Amino acid sequence: MTTLQLASHKHMLGTYGMSAEEITSILDRAAYWEQSPAKLSNHLQGRFVANMFFENSTRTRFSFEVAEKRLGAEVLNFTAGVSSVQKGESIYDTVKTLESMGVEAGVIRLKPNGVLAELADKIKIPLINAGDGNNEHPTQALLDLYTMRKHFGELRGLNVSIIGDILHSRVARSNLWALQAVGAKVSFCAPAAMQAPELAAHAPYISMDEAIRSDVVMMLRVQLERHAEADGMLQTTEEYREAFGLTMQREATMASHAIIMHPAPVNRNVEIDDELVECARSKIFEQMGNGVPIRMAVIERALA
Amino acid sequence: MTTLQLASHKHMLGTYGMSAEEITSILDRAAYWEQSPAKLSNHLQGRFVANMFFENSTRTRFSFEVAEKRLGAEVLNFTAGVSSVQKGESIYDTVKTLESMGVEAGVIRLKPNGVLAELADKIKIPLINAGDGNNEHPTQALLDLYTMRKHFGELRGLNVSIIGDILHSRVARSNLWALQAVGAKVSFCAPAAMQAPELAAHAPYISMDEAIRSDVVMMLRVQLERHAEADGMLQTTEEYREAFGLTMQREATMASHAIIMHPAPVNRNVEIDDELVECARSKIFEQMGNGVPIRMAVIERALA
Amino acid sequence: MTTLQLASHKHMLGTYGMSAEEITSILDRAAYWEQSPAKLSNHLQGRFVANMFFENSTRTRFSFEVAEKRLGAEVLNFTAGVSSVQKGESIYDTVKTLESMGVEAGVIRLKPNGVLAELADKIKIPLINAGDGNNEHPTQALLDLYTMRKHFGELRGLNVSIIGDILHSRVARSNLWALQAVGAKVSFCAPAAMQAPELAAHAPYISMDEAIRSDVVMMLRVQLERHAEADGMLQTTEEYREAFGLTMQREATMASHAIIMHPAPVNRNVEIDDELVECARSKIFEQMGNGVPIRMAVIERALA
Repeated sequence: MTTLQLASHKHMLGTYGMSAEEITSILDRAAYWEQSPAKLSNHLQGRFVANMFFENSTRTRFSFEVAEKRLGAEVLNFTAGVSSVQKGESIYDTVKTLESMGVEAGVIRLKPNGVLAELADKIKIPLINAGDGNNEHPTQALLDLYTMRKHFGELRGLNVSIIGDILHSRVARSNLWALQAVGAKVSFCAPAAMQAPELAAHAPYISMDEAIRSDVVMMLRVQLERHAEADGMLQTTEEYREAFGLTMQREATMASHAIIMHPAPVNRNVEIDDELVECARSKIFEQMGNGVPIRMAVIERALA
Repeated sequence: MTTLQLASHKHMLGTYGMSAEEITSILDRAAYWEQSPAKLSNHLQGRFVANMFFENSTRTRFSFEVAEKRLGAEVLNFTAGVSSVQKGESIYDTVKTLESMGVEAGVIRLKPNGVLAELADKIKIPLINAGDGNNEHPTQALLDLYTMRKHFGELRGLNVSIIGDILHSRVARSNLWALQAVGAKVSFCAPAAMQAPELAAHAPYISMDEAIRSDVVMMLRVQLERHAEADGMLQTTEEYREAFGLTMQREATMASHAIIMHPAPVNRNVEIDDELVECARSKIFEQMGNGVPIRMAVIERALA
Repeated sequence: MTTLQLASHKHMLGTYGMSAEEITSILDRAAYWEQSPAKLSNHLQGRFVANMFFENSTRTRFSFEVAEKRLGAEVLNFTAGVSSVQKGESIYDTVKTLESMGVEAGVIRLKPNGVLAELADKIKIPLINAGDGNNEHPTQALLDLYTMRKHFGELRGLNVSIIGDILHSRVARSNLWALQAVGAKVSFCAPAAMQAPELAAHAPYISMDEAIRSDVVMMLRVQLERHAEADGMLQTTEEYREAFGLTMQREATMASHAIIMHPAPVNRNVEIDDELVECARSKIFEQMGNGVPIRMAVIERALA
């Protein structure tokens, strides 16, 4: 099972198997970087990091690129068109080529499940998972924990509901493992077709009414088209919004201290109402900002 | 009306509403940067500028990138495929994301008219217009004025003819406002289908014979295909060249002191004869060179 | 004939016409850069180099980019979609534009034969050939010679077999000229449809049995699809492998001191067996690593 891979010391493949201490030390280091002046450090001067996005993502790539440059590293960017990424073999050759050229760490996003774990066994330089298939997206989970800790001071005992397409979500998986490691309580909420059977043993599926009474209401991006095609069913976006969207009405019933999170990009008025994206309790853009110091801490750890 | 937006203090949305003093101070600062040694300054060290091209442009993006790097800034490049740019909303989210990550200024090119003005109201970081729809392209106009001032010493009283597809030209609009602000006289020359009715009150349409007797003959790129589709008419490229192209024959009748300008890329042998692109009185490649110091001055102003 | 162009002093268009002294001085300088610490030098600080890839290549572009950044240069990257590269004219305008902006050297890859030589006549800044059509790929040959010299100590008298699609290979041509200049002996081995008639006067075509008895067995990438279309023939990949592939069986008959080379990317189990790509005598990934110091030496020479 690809979800069972252990986070190695230098790679950052997933939050699965990470200890509370390991997670806390990354969050602490991110806090250090967040406080440090915006001027570039020369921490990683003359060292090359490659961003290898075999699946496109402007946001995540930019977040890593800002982090790398703030650390003073030299950055190589690679974005593969979908067509040229057929076989794990050619991905291996590309990464090995960069290693041969003196690149010292690789940030990598991949579509096919399982390829990253194989790669990590064969490549000497540390690899940082920037999203692999439906499996893990560890830096997203770490920035989410960082955002929660900043707001609540403490992660232990926090109630976190993750709502939406759990089945296809690497964000849900990485948050599950990381949050449980630090003592938070995770629940899922999803329509039947979006539930992940193999996660049922790890966290309960609860109703939407219950989910929005949590301390943290974390909405996931849904791609209804994908489900429609795959399952021959499904709800319109309006039906989805009524059943599982964070509407203004539902937000009004949230606890006064509770916060809204979303990994972005959002589908406004599908999983979350437009008016809520930047409301007072929404942390959505703050999450994106926190991605930079978290990734600085993760890259620094990889190259230590 | 999007053409009526005022240039704000920090944004650079257009030349509309800019004062002669404001324009002159940018040209003067560009002259300073043009004289400064090629070595990078550390003026903007550690500060991030993002080039967000929602409409592709190699030339303009490179010009901004060179300017930013000469100032010592860190540069993020973003080029959206046409398909992913459907709604103003997702453009807003992308720009807001970059702001959240600590990017301090955004250079932006957009296809849909009016979106930039809306964006500028909602975004805190300064935005620099690198071309929005048919509306404005202020840095192009500023580099054009810079090129004219370098050649003639003085802009006041200069006769400038802008020839070609006025209707769709943001270059024509930005030059019109900027040139009039500094006391130059602008005339347009275009076939009926390429005239912009709303500009008729601001500058006269003159004949081609008259237009080429100006001090500055500024040719615009025409895209005949676009018109053919839109209007169900039109001239072949050869017909266009005969009626509105700057041919060798026409160039021979220009005043001896007059210059040729073009924002590039040129359609050789359509709006301008191949032999004229690099002739003695052509400023076309010099314009491109002048783009760098102008953009240094504009970016510096945005981040001041 | 485009293959007959002389390498100019500042440009690096091909190895054709280069002297042994010139080649040796580049290899020596690469050895210097290979030994120098990984920290960036400030050798080319504040100087701009543009990588203009009118034909896509992630590997070669990255190799140049690492070389440029290790030298401390500022890098602009340009990759043209196939569709926008129709005419040599627009390539000229793009390169001339970069020159106008203050770019001091251009690394360029082009598909159409002959365009590079024309460009080099018209452009003032030095151009470095990163692959033009079927003509030359000089930095690949130089890194190949560097790899051979590192292994054997001496190039004079070395027997090198180049096996595969000679007809379409710029790597074969650049290696031929460079190897002969330094006194090595080159042989080709290829099926009839992949032989280049105009090279027959320069190097003999030998059998596969003979070819694998050389000191250096250099395999080329084959693209059977291309031949199938062009020639209405051809072998399946399995037939090609049996006739001209470096199989485990053939490798077992190589001399104990002999090495395997390949310019990459490899077609595993077509021109070379999967198990041989990283075997003890394979220099394939070492070649890629050697590309960086070679390109540092070449860029430095261009900007000297």
